[in-house]
Amino acid sequence: MSRIAYFGPRGTFTEQAARELAPGDDLMPVETIWAALAAVRKGEADAACVPVENSVEGPVAATLDGLAEEAPLVAVAEALLPVHFTVLARRDADQVRTVASHPHALAQVRHWLERNLPGAEHVVASSTAAAAVAVQRGEYDAAVTAPVAVEHYPLRVLAAGVADVPDARTRFLLLRPPGPLPEPSGADRTSIVAAAANRTGALAELLTELAMRGINLTRLDARPIKGNFGLYRFFIDFEGHVAEPRIGDALAALRRRCNNVRFLGSHRRADEVAPTIGTGAGNEDFVKAVDWVAAVRRGEQA
Amino acid sequence: MSRIAYFGPRGTFTEQAARELAPGDDLMPVETIWAALAAVRKGEADAACVPVENSVEGPVAATLDGLAEEAPLVAVAEALLPVHFTVLARRDADQVRTVASHPHALAQVRHWLERNLPGAEHVVASSTAAAAVAVQRGEYDAAVTAPVAVEHYPLRVLAAGVADVPDARTRFLLLRPPGPLPEPSGADRTSIVAAAANRTGALAELLTELAMRGINLTRLDARPIKGNFGLYRFFIDFEGHVAEPRIGDALAALRRRCNNVRFLGSHRRADEVAPTIGTGAGNEDFVKAVDWVAAVRRGEQA
Repeated sequence: MSRIAYFGPRGTFTEQAARELAPGDDLMPVETIWAALAAVRKGEADAACVPVENSVEGPVAATLDGLAEEAPLVAVAEALLPVHFTVLARRDADQVRTVASHPHALAQVRHWLERNLPGAEHVVASSTAAAAVAVQRGEYDAAVTAPVAVEHYPLRVLAAGVADVPDARTRFLLLRPPGPLPEPSGADRTSIVAAAANRTGALAELLTELAMRGINLTRLDARPIKGNFGLYRFFIDFEGHVAEPRIGDALAALRRRCNNVRFLGSHRRADEVAPTIGTGAGNEDFVKAVDWVAAVRRGEQA
Repeated sequence: MSRIAYFGPRGTFTEQAARELAPGDDLMPVETIWAALAAVRKGEADAACVPVENSVEGPVAATLDGLAEEAPLVAVAEALLPVHFTVLARRDADQVRTVASHPHALAQVRHWLERNLPGAEHVVASSTAAAAVAVQRGEYDAAVTAPVAVEHYPLRVLAAGVADVPDARTRFLLLRPPGPLPEPSGADRTSIVAAAANRTGALAELLTELAMRGINLTRLDARPIKGNFGLYRFFIDFEGHVAEPRIGDALAALRRRCNNVRFLGSHRRADEVAPTIGTGAGNEDFVKAVDWVAAVRRGEQA
């Protein structure tokens, strides 16, 4: 059984993702994203489960920065959870006068609260789970929580599946130290981070290396380096697996242009979308072209 | 005197930015970024002041989405504020047992609090200003606030200039409906948002149009459209002013590739960094080249 550090506390969406990504493993909540990554780097955990992007809020800065700095970690799996909240109330609360949650959760159910609990005061908590604890202690009447919270706290379910944006989703990664990679599945995602040189066209060149090989981007994020506005590093996700010839060829080209590129993993996509591959951009095209050059060098073809 | 809607409440960093960007104007705090933009669109305010990016937290999703949707707004000025907090305490608090603030502010002074107020319990509030109000009411002993808060609340300054990351900064925009643009200053920034076609290489092509003209990017953010992970729009900032021939030429090329590109403004950079312009990429090069084609067409040159 592996030990999985996750961004806690218990009863949050990240616990739910960790259960899905590491069923049956020993789940260990830690206080911050940074602590979850550090636990793996120090060998206190075998893997870490952290959020990486939310379709409403955007990228999770602490995860991206944590992957670019310190010892390398590699994503071996991802989970995509719908952001549907459960509203839990004290069993003895006949009326909801106060509703607590993390500010991001309150922001994502604002319209629902206005329609369904009008007049209730909104109180901020440090996490959705901390809100549930405060309700259990009798401090507030209700909490907006992750669905999994109902398993930890003996509270009454006022509503489930609550969300202002119906298709909001958060993507989570399972991260390990570098080691054997997952097998290609046919619907994979590869992630890298690169600090492009601070000159005109540097990013365009990196993206053109991918575009010229017919590789489709799935995500691009720019993050300032060390809190400095002047220099950025780019987190680039694209279709495919590093074990494929076309992806290996592209990664080698990126490495030539940028010697501080770091591989962040190749793994199956949670949405199972297969890659779009244009004419002449398939793996067999890459293999045949290299074979042809080898034959030319041997004097067998021209 | 103009009326400026800003993302409030009073006593936050955004009020500080609004004072800098619109000195002497009538400042009107509103509850959300969306409400600040809506106030301008409805004609209830002449301009809006909102944060657009923070060097630690990254882009401000609500501002980017708010600029891409609804009626166009244009940035006419920007301010860059150092993220230095002031710690305010109740005048009668002889010991600090509780310290309140917005979760983002608490995250940015965590090390300082551990060293200087060890043992104090951290309590989350909906904004740095709300934390000051709660301290004033006697609910907590201290608040981590924006420097401007001390002007609104009769609290004791425990410490000023507090920040774990010493060079953290937030950039703010002053936004108006489309109208006369600011004059080029020689150190300008132009911003656009474009929903690139969902096909391989679409973003690489947009960036290559800029790179081929020697135009340096200053920022690139990808945001999912309508909370959907599949489709992204790209917020691209680059050096220069739309009034310059080289920038106008690039914008026309982007518009050809992408007919839903939206202009978000050209204005002086707060950091006053002048553009890097390579050989053959200056405004006079663009003008001379167009003049030469005109002369060729007239049969005067070849």
